[in-house]
Amino acid sequence: MKKTGLTLFVAVMLGSSPVGMAQAKPDYAIRYRQSVYTAILWNYLPMGDMVRGKTPYDKAAFALRAERVAALTPMLLEGFPKGSDRGAKTEAKPNIWSDFADFSAKMKSFETESKTLATVSAAGDLEKIKTQFAKVSETCKSCHSKFKTD
Amino acid sequence: MKKTGLTLFVAVMLGSSPVGMAQAKPDYAIRYRQSVYTAILWNYLPMGDMVRGKTPYDKAAFALRAERVAALTPMLLEGFPKGSDRGAKTEAKPNIWSDFADFSAKMKSFETESKTLATVSAAGDLEKIKTQFAKVSETCKSCHSKFKTD
Repeated sequence: MKKTGLTLFVAVMLGSSPVGMAQAKPDYAIRYRQSVYTAILWNYLPMGDMVRGKTPYDKAAFALRAERVAALTPMLLEGFPKGSDRGAKTEAKPNIWSDFADFSAKMKSFETESKTLATVSAAGDLEKIKTQFAKVSETCKSCHSKFKTD
Repeated sequence: MKKTGLTLFVAVMLGSSPVGMAQAKPDYAIRYRQSVYTAILWNYLPMGDMVRGKTPYDKAAFALRAERVAALTPMLLEGFPKGSDRGAKTEAKPNIWSDFADFSAKMKSFETESKTLATVSAAGDLEKIKTQFAKVSETCKSCHSKFKTD
């Protein structure tokens, strides 16, 4: 963990977390949301490899990763508070905040489809999994094409 | 998301994720585990503020964050593959890998206690929550003091 994280962690242990929380600070929000995306990606890529037959399909492993992604996606939205369009390096476009209703709706689709993927993955029908995996990927692309810089 | 993340994400969309996954690469593992810690901390700090009365106790908010932390902690261990003691800047000590049994046990305690915290938090008895929150914090401290540089 970076020094900032450590310092905060130690502060928690000592019962002296920063007044008012650093939560609202743009840099912290940016770091948080990028972290959640990183964790999503870490789990999503091996699923993609299985879906495409690059690695053997492993029902339990796939279901676990799908469950993790479904747990992570609802954590994203609060990583985009107003004012976090700038600060640390970010690929978030300003239209996220000027069109937050659509951004939220797209994020909600990501949550919903990834939750369905977790359910489908637990059942273990690879063809159905492939279809649902593609739907999740579509929600990624739909949001990125409008709200994320290249 | 950083460029690396973006590139990988696009690769997934295009059906061409890197051969053999970047999963095992030390830098990627380090970035992943730091990301999971960041996400844990983001949720843990507001819980700490409530436990200490710095912010009003909000049963639903607390329970949600506790549930998230419980979902995140089991994601940590795979972020410590062999060879990831060096690469990107890391505060992980080399003894993690020379004493991996103890490291894993401590991580398991973190998982177990945070899962219990989620259960206790859903019930909403603040005194019990405080006790269990302290137990989780103890598992953090116990692991950090042995396996993490200052």
